[in-house]
Amino acid sequence: MNETLALSKALINRNSVTPEDAGCQKLLCDRLEPYGFTVENMRFEEVDNIWLRRGTERPLLCFAGHTDVVPTGPITDWDSDPFNAEIREGLLYGRGAADMKSSIAAFTVASERFVKDFPEHEGSIAYLITSDEEGPSVNGTVKVIEALEARNEKIDWCLVGEPSSKDTLGDVIKNGRRGSLNGYLTIYGQQGHVAYPHLADNPMHLAAPMLAELVAMEWDKGNEFFPPTTFQVSNINSGTGATNVIPGQVDIIFNFRFSTEVTADQLKQRVQDLLEKHGLDVELKWILSGVPFLTAEGELVAAAVESIKEVTGTDTELSTSGGTSDGRFIAPTGAQVLELGPRNATIHQINECVEVDDLEPLEEIYYRIMKKLLA
Amino acid sequence: MNETLALSKALINRNSVTPEDAGCQKLLCDRLEPYGFTVENMRFEEVDNIWLRRGTERPLLCFAGHTDVVPTGPITDWDSDPFNAEIREGLLYGRGAADMKSSIAAFTVASERFVKDFPEHEGSIAYLITSDEEGPSVNGTVKVIEALEARNEKIDWCLVGEPSSKDTLGDVIKNGRRGSLNGYLTIYGQQGHVAYPHLADNPMHLAAPMLAELVAMEWDKGNEFFPPTTFQVSNINSGTGATNVIPGQVDIIFNFRFSTEVTADQLKQRVQDLLEKHGLDVELKWILSGVPFLTAEGELVAAAVESIKEVTGTDTELSTSGGTSDGRFIAPTGAQVLELGPRNATIHQINECVEVDDLEPLEEIYYRIMKKLLA
Ligand SMILES: [Zn+2]
Ligand SMILES: [Zn+2]
Repeated sequence: MNETLALSKALINRNSVTPEDAGCQKLLCDRLEPYGFTVENMRFEEVDNIWLRRGTERPLLCFAGHTDVVPTGPITDWDSDPFNAEIREGLLYGRGAADMKSSIAAFTVASERFVKDFPEHEGSIAYLITSDEEGPSVNGTVKVIEALEARNEKIDWCLVGEPSSKDTLGDVIKNGRRGSLNGYLTIYGQQGHVAYPHLADNPMHLAAPMLAELVAMEWDKGNEFFPPTTFQVSNINSGTGATNVIPGQVDIIFNFRFSTEVTADQLKQRVQDLLEKHGLDVELKWILSGVPFLTAEGELVAAAVESIKEVTGTDTELSTSGGTSDGRFIAPTGAQVLELGPRNATIHQINECVEVDDLEPLEEIYYRIMKKLLA
Repeated sequence: MNETLALSKALINRNSVTPEDAGCQKLLCDRLEPYGFTVENMRFEEVDNIWLRRGTERPLLCFAGHTDVVPTGPITDWDSDPFNAEIREGLLYGRGAADMKSSIAAFTVASERFVKDFPEHEGSIAYLITSDEEGPSVNGTVKVIEALEARNEKIDWCLVGEPSSKDTLGDVIKNGRRGSLNGYLTIYGQQGHVAYPHLADNPMHLAAPMLAELVAMEWDKGNEFFPPTTFQVSNINSGTGATNVIPGQVDIIFNFRFSTEVTADQLKQRVQDLLEKHGLDVELKWILSGVPFLTAEGELVAAAVESIKEVTGTDTELSTSGGTSDGRFIAPTGAQVLELGPRNATIHQINECVEVDDLEPLEEIYYRIMKKLLA
C-alpha cells in the first residue's frame, strides 16, 4: 500500500466533524517532528490549529488546509461507514476523502520525501492546519494568520490543498477567489388592514420597483481572471401569515460575489444610492465575508503548472470561480496563494470519495513544486 | 334602567367568544317567542344559529347579527372584566358592547314594542343570528341562507346590526361592501449555491419585474358607490435563512378588495396574463371570500335615512368601505341589505364600549324603520 493512501485512511478514520480535530493534527505533528519541523499548537476557543515550520529563512512555502469535515448526513445513506475508509472499485470512500484529508496526506508524504532528498533545502516549509474551515471560520486560519502577522512571520507561497480538480487530477487550479459580501436589508412601511390601504403603506409595494432595478443591474463586466460580479437575493420575508394584514416591514438578505473590478465599498454605495433614489425608509447592515484575491502569476503558479504538466500531461486551467476558501485570509498578507487538490465532484456529499490512482500523482505534484521552489 | 341597556348587559355578561354562543340565543328566543315568533335552531357543526320569524307573508324584514365576540386579549389590560358589563362615565364597557350585542338588544326591544303597537303588521319580521361571524364564517350565516334558499324562503329587507357609525350614532350606514379575493402564488425557480448562479435560477429575481408591474396596476376607477379596487401583498416568503443558498421558490399571498366595476374572474385573468407575459413557472390558487354587493337605493335605504334624520337629526352617509361582513352572504339572494349600528371606534379592542346615551336612540331608529316598512 502506498504511503499517501495509508495516511489518508488514518485521517479519514478519525471522526473530525467541525470543530473536532479528533487527533488528526497530533498524527501530523508526530510524523513531521522527526523531520525537523517545530510544532506550535494554536488553540483558539474550541478550535485546534497547528503551525509547523522547518527552517527559519525565507522564502517560506506553506501548505494550508483543514482537518475538519462537514457532517455526514443520514449515515444509512452511505454505502460504507464514512469514518472507516474503504476502497471499492478503485475509489477510496469516507468523509473527508476529497475535502481534504488526501491532500494533507499527500503533502505530508511529499515533504518527508523532499526533506530526505534535500535536507539542506533553501528557505522554509510550513503547515497551517485548522479544524474550523467548514464551520464559522472565526477561530481558525484567520486567527493563526493574525498571530503570524503580529510577529512579522511572512508566508511567500501558500499551497492550499482544497480539491480544485474538476474532471481529471490537476485540470483546474484556483489562483484566486471572488469576494463575498452579504447585505441584511429591512424596508419599513406602515402596517394596517388590507381593507384600509390608505391608512397603511405596504413595504413590499414600496420595495418592488427597487428590487426590479436591483436584480437587473450590471455591477461590472469581470476581467481576464474573474467572471462578472453577481448579485443574489437569498432570503425575503414579510407578513405574519394573516391574509388581511398589510405587513409593516420586509426583510431581505442578499449576497454579492464580486470581482477585482469593484470594491465592497463601491457595491455598498451603489445599493445605498438605489435605496435613496427610491426614497425608501430602510435599515441596512453589511457583512463582508472576504475580499477578492488573485495570484495572477509568479513562481508558485509557474511551479504548479509545470509540475502538473510533467506528472499528468495536463495543461491546467487557472480559475477564480466557486465558493470561498481560507485562501481569502492568507492572500491579504501578500502571499502568493494557490489551491490545488484532487477532484471535487463528491465533496460534502453522501459517499464522498477520491480516486486511489490519483493519490501518488498528487503526492508527486506536491513534491515537484517543493523541489522547483526550494531545492 | 332602560330595557335596551339591561338586555345589552345580560348579553355582554355571557362569555361568547367564537364559536361559543353561551346562551345568548336562548335568551333572545325566550323573550321573542311570547311575541309570536316561531323559533328554529339551526346548529351546523359546532356553531349555534337561530332563525326566528313572526308572520308568514312577504315582505320580510330580517335583522341579522352575531352573538359571538372576538377574544379579549390580555384580560389584565382591561379596566374591568370584559364579561361583566360596567358603566363608567356614560360608557358601557364589555366585550361585544359595540360589536354587536347592543344592536341585538336594541332590535329586540324595538320589535317587542312594535309588535305590541302593531300586532297586525304587514309582512313578517325575522332574526338571523349566528355565533360564527368573527370566526371562519363557514357554519354560520352562509349555511342558514342555504337552508332558507332551499325552501325558497326570501328576505326582502335585511338590516345587519354591525357597528357602522363613525363619530356619532347614525352618521354612516353601509349599503354595500367590496368583494374580497385572495391569491396564493408560488413562483418556481431553480435552487442552487450563490457562488454558482449560472446553475440556478433565482425565483425572486424572476418575480421582481412582475411584482413591480403588479403593484403599479390600476384595476378600475371605482364608481359612485365604490372606491377603486385595491391590491395588497399580505405575505411574501423565500429562502431558508442560509445566506449562501439561492432559494427554489417564492411564496406570495395577496388580496384584492374589489368594486362592482370588475369581476373576480376578470381580476384572475389579468393576474394570469401578467404571469404569462413574464414567462413565469407558477402555481396559483384563488379563494373568493365574497363578491361585492350594493343596495344603491330602495325602501330599506329610504326608511333608514329618514329614521336616522328624525331621531338624531343627522344626514347619514352611505358607504361601502371597510372590511367584509355577513351581508355578503345575504345580498346574493336578492335582498336589500343595509348595515346600521353604533359607533365602531373601539370594536375588537381592549376596553370596547358603547355610549349609553346611544342605546335608546338606536332602539328608536330600528323601531321607526320597522314602522315605515311594515306598519
Ligand atoms: Zn475544504
Ligand atoms: Zn360584528
